[in-house]
Amino acid sequence: MTKISLKKQILDSNDAVAATNRKLFDAHHIVAFNVMASPGAGKTSVILSLASRLKPTHKVGVVEGDIASRIDTEKVIAAGYPAFQINTGGNCHLDAVMVQKALSALPLDDIHILFVENVGNLICPANFNLGTHKNIVIASVPEGSDKPYKYPGMFMKADIVILNKTDLMKAFDFDLAYFTHGIKILNDKAPIVLTSCKSKRGIRELANLVIAKYRKNFANHNFEF
Amino acid sequence: MTKISLKKQILDSNDAVAATNRKLFDAHHIVAFNVMASPGAGKTSVILSLASRLKPTHKVGVVEGDIASRIDTEKVIAAGYPAFQINTGGNCHLDAVMVQKALSALPLDDIHILFVENVGNLICPANFNLGTHKNIVIASVPEGSDKPYKYPGMFMKADIVILNKTDLMKAFDFDLAYFTHGIKILNDKAPIVLTSCKSKRGIRELANLVIAKYRKNFANHNFEF
Repeated sequence: MTKISLKKQILDSNDAVAATNRKLFDAHHIVAFNVMASPGAGKTSVILSLASRLKPTHKVGVVEGDIASRIDTEKVIAAGYPAFQINTGGNCHLDAVMVQKALSALPLDDIHILFVENVGNLICPANFNLGTHKNIVIASVPEGSDKPYKYPGMFMKADIVILNKTDLMKAFDFDLAYFTHGIKILNDKAPIVLTSCKSKRGIRELANLVIAKYRKNFANHNFEF
Repeated sequence: MTKISLKKQILDSNDAVAATNRKLFDAHHIVAFNVMASPGAGKTSVILSLASRLKPTHKVGVVEGDIASRIDTEKVIAAGYPAFQINTGGNCHLDAVMVQKALSALPLDDIHILFVENVGNLICPANFNLGTHKNIVIASVPEGSDKPYKYPGMFMKADIVILNKTDLMKAFDFDLAYFTHGIKILNDKAPIVLTSCKSKRGIRELANLVIAKYRKNFANHNFEF
């Protein structure tokens, strides 16, 4: 009982800060995406490919979440986008307070689309609301086609599912029908986008989904995903 | 303060059950390995390759930990080894109580080497003692060579580090020196074994490490890792 009410207290207090983050995003006309995946699924690569595609029309910013290191933030800054690194220490997920601190360090008036790259973990990040508008969940071909069946909670919370590293589909004998079926029984609303950051497959489709969400929020555009 | 002491309470009570598990392993002359990795790094494939290599001399049993599904246990049973599936519900790691329950369902007198395959997660499982003797941590080439720098806690606790899917080293332009350096600065004791479950590279070396640990515990053999 103590454990449950403590957990509820933590989540409630997180939700309150998440609501503040959301207000800040809206006030600055930012659409924010929580990007979640296993370690090494290609979160940073997908974000950089997307940012490059969005560049002509939308300014991108990035929050990077990791247990340790500044590796990803340095990559993003080298590519020319504003980025802030959160190091969680040992924590297995970002929370709303960490994101709130990151926001105070970013040029919010100069960002249209913010990608918050969560800690590499296909479980815990799904439970913490950050105030972001939509969840992007990335699976990758080398992880195998059974991931939706083994990690249902994460895929249930996705607004967009990406299957990345699809250039390796044949090498891994990846069962796309089994993967897609696994997603559909959990979540029949999220579009599944097949991507490869090497060939840029799917990046245009993904950028269109992101832009559609931006237009929906800030230009009364009725194209929805 | 409440949060810290609650966490300590949980870990202390877990440690007490882990000690009971350890006694049970020792009483049955079992050496148990906690196998940890990201989702899709190849935990089950490594275990099955190892089990096949160990078969002539050592009987293998497996405990499978997953949020959901019986996929891995069915694979292990189909290959002819006793296995028990733990489904954690939403929990991101196994704990000693879960393993204790699994042990009561396995033929312990007929097992020499037990592999406990933890939930796919490169963070949380490292914090929970299960009573097993040694930790095996598996990284895989498609995840990228920066994983030790981003997830130091897990690699610090490894007794053996495996780099799996090494048949893809060239395709991924994997920086082995950077990976190895990252491990060494965290943990200069754990051997790093390069494996491929396709070519069976490294499986013999791995089996020798496992057998050496078995001999050390149960035949006063002084070959240690």
